[in-house]
Amino acid sequence: MNFQFVSPFLTSILNVLSTMASLAAKHGKPSYKTSATACGDVSGIIGMASEQAKGTLAVTFTEPVALEITKRMLGDELTEIDHTVIDMVGEITNMVTGGAKSLLSEKGYRFDMAIPSVISGKNHVIHHKSKVPVILVPFHTDAGDFFVEICFE
Amino acid sequence: MNFQFVSPFLTSILNVLSTMASLAAKHGKPSYKTSATACGDVSGIIGMASEQAKGTLAVTFTEPVALEITKRMLGDELTEIDHTVIDMVGEITNMVTGGAKSLLSEKGYRFDMAIPSVISGKNHVIHHKSKVPVILVPFHTDAGDFFVEICFE
Repeated sequence: MNFQFVSPFLTSILNVLSTMASLAAKHGKPSYKTSATACGDVSGIIGMASEQAKGTLAVTFTEPVALEITKRMLGDELTEIDHTVIDMVGEITNMVTGGAKSLLSEKGYRFDMAIPSVISGKNHVIHHKSKVPVILVPFHTDAGDFFVEICFE
Repeated sequence: MNFQFVSPFLTSILNVLSTMASLAAKHGKPSYKTSATACGDVSGIIGMASEQAKGTLAVTFTEPVALEITKRMLGDELTEIDHTVIDMVGEITNMVTGGAKSLLSEKGYRFDMAIPSVISGKNHVIHHKSKVPVILVPFHTDAGDFFVEICFE
């Protein structure tokens, strides 16, 4: 796993949340994901591929964080994960990956983005079938925590 | 949505299940996915991308079908979705996409595959954030039904 692939994603998610939702987030220490620990209620997931590399990004939110970001981005005070929240998570996943793609292309790394998917369902877990270790990064906000998982081969 | 992208995936999944699990499956009529109807317990999902096209494939199994395929592929009589089942779903997702990639390349369509992910969690739902409609294909086996969702832009 190449750590230089990780940093542009962290920069990008902090940018997106700050710009779109006026939400300050702080990331904890990245670690190798040893067990399926990032359990959440709504996740955005997107594949990245090129001839040189392939990877996947997943952003997993618990319900309170997803609702708070939706409120800050759209002004909607929702009480459960509905299509508005799902669209918002898809949009964030897309924007974060687009931002990272642009930062990585400056370093000479190029990839194409697949179509983002959003998973909903209480306490689901994402497992990446990668030959290399998955990097797990916890993020903290005043509304709660969320997780970013990145793998690149 | 281009229907000629769909048929190689259907051929490929029937091949994989027949070869690897000696399981005969029959697909129902493909339709546009209008609401999030493909609800299941374990799903494989993989992104595909190239300069010309981007897409996502998801295969969603209920627990009984996933356990039956695992039993037929590996001989393991399991009673719940564990890491063996999750690995098997990731492997099937990879093989189906690899098979479809090979069939599509014969037609002149090329894409790179991202890293497959597997989602576990009772009754989760996958939403594809595509600009084009998602094609939903139900499959029937003696062990139960499963669903394939394909979108390509």
